[in-house]
Amino acid sequence: MTRGRFITLEGGEGVGKSTNLQFIRHLLAQKQIDVLLTREPGGTELAEKIRQLLLEKHSESITPQAELLLVFAARAQHVQHVILPALAQGKWVLSDRFTDATYAYQGGGRNMDNRIIAWLESTVQGELRPDLTLLLDAPVETGLLRAQHRGKLDRFESERRDFFERVRQAYLTRARQEPRRYSIIDAAMPLAEVQNQIGRAIEALVS
Amino acid sequence: MTRGRFITLEGGEGVGKSTNLQFIRHLLAQKQIDVLLTREPGGTELAEKIRQLLLEKHSESITPQAELLLVFAARAQHVQHVILPALAQGKWVLSDRFTDATYAYQGGGRNMDNRIIAWLESTVQGELRPDLTLLLDAPVETGLLRAQHRGKLDRFESERRDFFERVRQAYLTRARQEPRRYSIIDAAMPLAEVQNQIGRAIEALVS
Repeated sequence: MTRGRFITLEGGEGVGKSTNLQFIRHLLAQKQIDVLLTREPGGTELAEKIRQLLLEKHSESITPQAELLLVFAARAQHVQHVILPALAQGKWVLSDRFTDATYAYQGGGRNMDNRIIAWLESTVQGELRPDLTLLLDAPVETGLLRAQHRGKLDRFESERRDFFERVRQAYLTRARQEPRRYSIIDAAMPLAEVQNQIGRAIEALVS
Repeated sequence: MTRGRFITLEGGEGVGKSTNLQFIRHLLAQKQIDVLLTREPGGTELAEKIRQLLLEKHSESITPQAELLLVFAARAQHVQHVILPALAQGKWVLSDRFTDATYAYQGGGRNMDNRIIAWLESTVQGELRPDLTLLLDAPVETGLLRAQHRGKLDRFESERRDFFERVRQAYLTRARQEPRRYSIIDAAMPLAEVQNQIGRAIEALVS
């Protein structure tokens, strides 16, 4: 059986990940491709509990190291119990965020050493990397305004503007280093144009 | 101010850690030494929540990697928020288990590569190592019998006998490699004799 493809959707706050996730699912369904939608941190029962710990505000601050290790603990569950089995069965997997988010949020945002992240990545994932990463990119202001309209902010959404600027730049840097895997989508464009670009990137993967 | 000393108490299930932890606290109090009692996994609010995730039984199995990363995430919180500040203030810290337990349970018990554990140890702890580690050692049967009398077994206590045999051997191997830091106490002896030996090890550290 042919191994499925692994697509990840990345981007900062309020760039339209949820809307476009459904759009991609719809697009693949039209092509009779069986796709598993999942997300990070999360994707399994335990990983979702870890997600809660990451998003909640606690009486103590979470150290950047603890945050990073929690992210990868959740990822270990997700990779072993969900992603690898699905790909092996020939299913496609579409994840709302994956390890690029770790480089962006914990690396860029929290200034964690990228070498530590890379070590954890290869320890937890082995050879597994996305086949295609769609980066929805928009100016920080645009995204934050949208995220704030959604209501109560979680521990990440409550960060300061410069945090999100570092997250955005870290995403862009990675995308530019690996142009074959990434497709950078200007998420500030009208939705029809965003989805047009997403469609082209998916098309290239299918054919 | 003189940095405090860091003592850890280690051992498998049912070797008498709780009883002897109180004994050591009492011993140090008699010497006017201010000691902070703590435990792993745990020791902070978030680390205790992680402990819960580790001890509970879940609908999915926890992969050895996720387990290891959760242990070190909890440790990062414990080290940064509790252990290092206390030692810096001149307090002594007495912890019911620390990183030797990771080498024993995740390394010995779960067969995780010791080099992965060592990498995480140096990343999370920097130079921090215990000044004295008391290893309460007893044959696996003796300990399990005691642990079972305490009632409902957690995720670790429900492991098979050979798991605990590997845990015990991993503890003993480490202790023999670093005889200056470790004191191996035969926990199958009568309590008075166990405490006599603990007393001598503590005495050597105080003087």
